[in-house]
Amino acid sequence: MWHLYHFPLCPFSRKVQLAMSEKKVQFELVRVYPWNAPDTFQELNPAGRTPVLHDRDKQRVLVDSQAICEYFEETEAAAPLILGSAAARAEIRRLVALFDECFFADVTGPLLQEKMKKRLIARQSPDSRTLRDAMRLAHEHLDYVDWLIDNRRWLAGAQLSLADFAAAAQISVADYLGGIDWSGHEQAHGWYRVLKSRPSFAPLLKQKMEGIPAPRHYADVNA
Amino acid sequence: MWHLYHFPLCPFSRKVQLAMSEKKVQFELVRVYPWNAPDTFQELNPAGRTPVLHDRDKQRVLVDSQAICEYFEETEAAAPLILGSAAARAEIRRLVALFDECFFADVTGPLLQEKMKKRLIARQSPDSRTLRDAMRLAHEHLDYVDWLIDNRRWLAGAQLSLADFAAAAQISVADYLGGIDWSGHEQAHGWYRVLKSRPSFAPLLKQKMEGIPAPRHYADVNA
Repeated sequence: MWHLYHFPLCPFSRKVQLAMSEKKVQFELVRVYPWNAPDTFQELNPAGRTPVLHDRDKQRVLVDSQAICEYFEETEAAAPLILGSAAARAEIRRLVALFDECFFADVTGPLLQEKMKKRLIARQSPDSRTLRDAMRLAHEHLDYVDWLIDNRRWLAGAQLSLADFAAAAQISVADYLGGIDWSGHEQAHGWYRVLKSRPSFAPLLKQKMEGIPAPRHYADVNA
Repeated sequence: MWHLYHFPLCPFSRKVQLAMSEKKVQFELVRVYPWNAPDTFQELNPAGRTPVLHDRDKQRVLVDSQAICEYFEETEAAAPLILGSAAARAEIRRLVALFDECFFADVTGPLLQEKMKKRLIARQSPDSRTLRDAMRLAHEHLDYVDWLIDNRRWLAGAQLSLADFAAAAQISVADYLGGIDWSGHEQAHGWYRVLKSRPSFAPLLKQKMEGIPAPRHYADVNA
């Protein structure tokens, strides 16, 4: 059995959960806070980051969300998420990187820093200017999602893919932290509601971070 | 013909150059500075980052260094760089992410910020504390390379792989910027000298960033 080391607001662990659930790969969640992790976690991943996937019986360890998703893409034929021609697969991976790296750097990362780490670790108030910048950049990213959905059925093309799940994973964490304002983003909002209604998404909407309540609309699949 | 949009000290463009050269895929370099790029570049990649690979005749655009490397892995059988079992490939991708993300965040990124962007764009002096931190973290990463090379032939295992090229690409930029001190890292140094001596590396060692001279040892394959 796979054990997925994660914390509830880790967007990369969410991406892995979504991919594994879509592919119907069984796993159990193990909660770990990278900023306060036991040595046993550091031994599994010297980089000290979530997600880490561990199968104790078979002595297998997988580290890094994209490496994990590629692994299951190669070993599980069900529900392909990096699919199509080599060019189509490159487009999926471009968008995964855009959300994993740029959206995270612009939006999710600063929100986690200001609204989670400062509250839980440093016991400080968030910096309002940083929050404003993150929300402004969230609008720019959502503009791009609007444009994609105006031109395509799903983010990367005609098929649902890992790009949709990587994007929705980041957006769900930003939404939990109050960083998403859908006004002016009808297309993106419609697309996100469809994602949020999938069975693979339901467990994510129930995961709560202690000390940080989610806004009311967060877990409502119609909101 | 592929055109690779890059700037000389972009570690991700270097990784792509190395992978394409190893696979003997022809390309021409186009220099672009993301902080001062023409609209035509922004149209190719809305994220505004290098590397971007463009084939004008065939109207193909590839964006993101890992998406590009995976694309050539799928389309070019020569010189496999993400190779072996699914578990071996996951280990290669783990290490690629470790260098692309952690080494970059700890070492290459701060060095580029302090020694390149501050000099060329803001005309400021580098912050010596940030530089000290980056060099201290470089030692920690090189300790890990030492450990890997103590236990394996190449970084990810018995075979030369994209992990080696991703790591060497980051290290080469840090070395150009004076951030690498090999003392105490004999294994890592030996491994890097072997990488540096490969024909695919030679063009990188000749690429100069205007206004930022490389240290003497940088291009010496015996140093």
